[in-house]
Amino acid sequence: MVKLVFSRHGESEWNSKNLFTGWTNVQLTEKGINEAKEGGRKIKAAGIELDHAYTSVLDRAIKTCHYILEESDQLWIPETKSWRLNERHYGELQGLNKQETAEKYGADQVKLWRRSYDVLPPLLDESDERSAVHDRRYAHLQKSSIPAGENLKVTLERVVPFWEDEIAPQLLDGKNVLVAAHGNSLRALAKHIEGISDEDIMDLEIPTGQPLVYELDDETLEVKDKYYL
Amino acid sequence: MVKLVFSRHGESEWNSKNLFTGWTNVQLTEKGINEAKEGGRKIKAAGIELDHAYTSVLDRAIKTCHYILEESDQLWIPETKSWRLNERHYGELQGLNKQETAEKYGADQVKLWRRSYDVLPPLLDESDERSAVHDRRYAHLQKSSIPAGENLKVTLERVVPFWEDEIAPQLLDGKNVLVAAHGNSLRALAKHIEGISDEDIMDLEIPTGQPLVYELDDETLEVKDKYYL
Repeated sequence: MVKLVFSRHGESEWNSKNLFTGWTNVQLTEKGINEAKEGGRKIKAAGIELDHAYTSVLDRAIKTCHYILEESDQLWIPETKSWRLNERHYGELQGLNKQETAEKYGADQVKLWRRSYDVLPPLLDESDERSAVHDRRYAHLQKSSIPAGENLKVTLERVVPFWEDEIAPQLLDGKNVLVAAHGNSLRALAKHIEGISDEDIMDLEIPTGQPLVYELDDETLEVKDKYYL
Repeated sequence: MVKLVFSRHGESEWNSKNLFTGWTNVQLTEKGINEAKEGGRKIKAAGIELDHAYTSVLDRAIKTCHYILEESDQLWIPETKSWRLNERHYGELQGLNKQETAEKYGADQVKLWRRSYDVLPPLLDESDERSAVHDRRYAHLQKSSIPAGENLKVTLERVVPFWEDEIAPQLLDGKNVLVAAHGNSLRALAKHIEGISDEDIMDLEIPTGQPLVYELDDETLEVKDKYYL
């Protein structure tokens, strides 16, 4: 049996301002930092010995990862960062206020963008300064691989290769793994691991500051147990 | 031309208490944290774009690395931690007060331990709870590879393979590299890169909080320029 621990980052500066965030590199608030530390203390209290940590290339997830490792006295374990664990890209909506967006496009349209599995948000043009094509983080990618806006389906399609190539081999090797990431990249991973349907997945809400532990069979990666710390 | 940046961690809790530290996992003081942040701001002001960060498996170097990357807006770059970048192991002396040690063994003996290239400190027995054989960080190593006490010569012998296998290939690939580590692991690297003699190397003092930049030929790794930020 191996352990896979998900930790969703806590409150960011834009959560607290009610803005669509996506790939925008906003920082954790004081509350968000405390949620991360609390997650680390819970992992320590549970006596979970981690072997490898994975996170995105967005500061709020990376710092959550670091706070967790520090609070659980495991800052020394190897850490891998990947754009594939980034939050869902919210396209043109990034930086817009959720309330104002609802007034402009209608509450039903915004609900569709937020809660449907396969409806794309309005795409962000490459010429827009918010576009990820201008960010050195993604300079190694072909422009055609850099998203301009994603739904959960597209998010899952770029998360799963990272699971298959990086995370799953560690688990199959008997290593306990931490994934410190975002609401939607973790949701995509959970869908893949648990086989949750397209209809049901949007109802899954992973809370912040409460690490989610999967106990997996180390030969099949079948989920044997699942609990929050 | 590629850039190699050395950053030596700042004041730790045991520096401030005048204790021999070595592989003991002590934390940075507030002053040490500020030194790291200052180093990060200098790297940002110099406009240095880093591609990969290397650090040891000791918290004071890892946190220095993180503060530098954060302050220079490069927290997302890949980071590799290795025991080979650890501080020199100080054997039996770890945890002892430098002044008291001088009174017990004589100032000349302590000076020899501290300043000679190839005199070993008293070795730490494996049964001692301070021994690194009890630490999960080093569980992947054969016991015979885990030091019980090092001089700079032995430190260099375990640092250089990491340079050859990990750091040098990145530089030869045109990547700018940060090494956030310790007084003696950086001294060993500097000796190797610059070809400093056994006699002269102990006089090299890399200051804390002041990143040291090497500009290297990206085909030969010959040092073309060297300066502090």
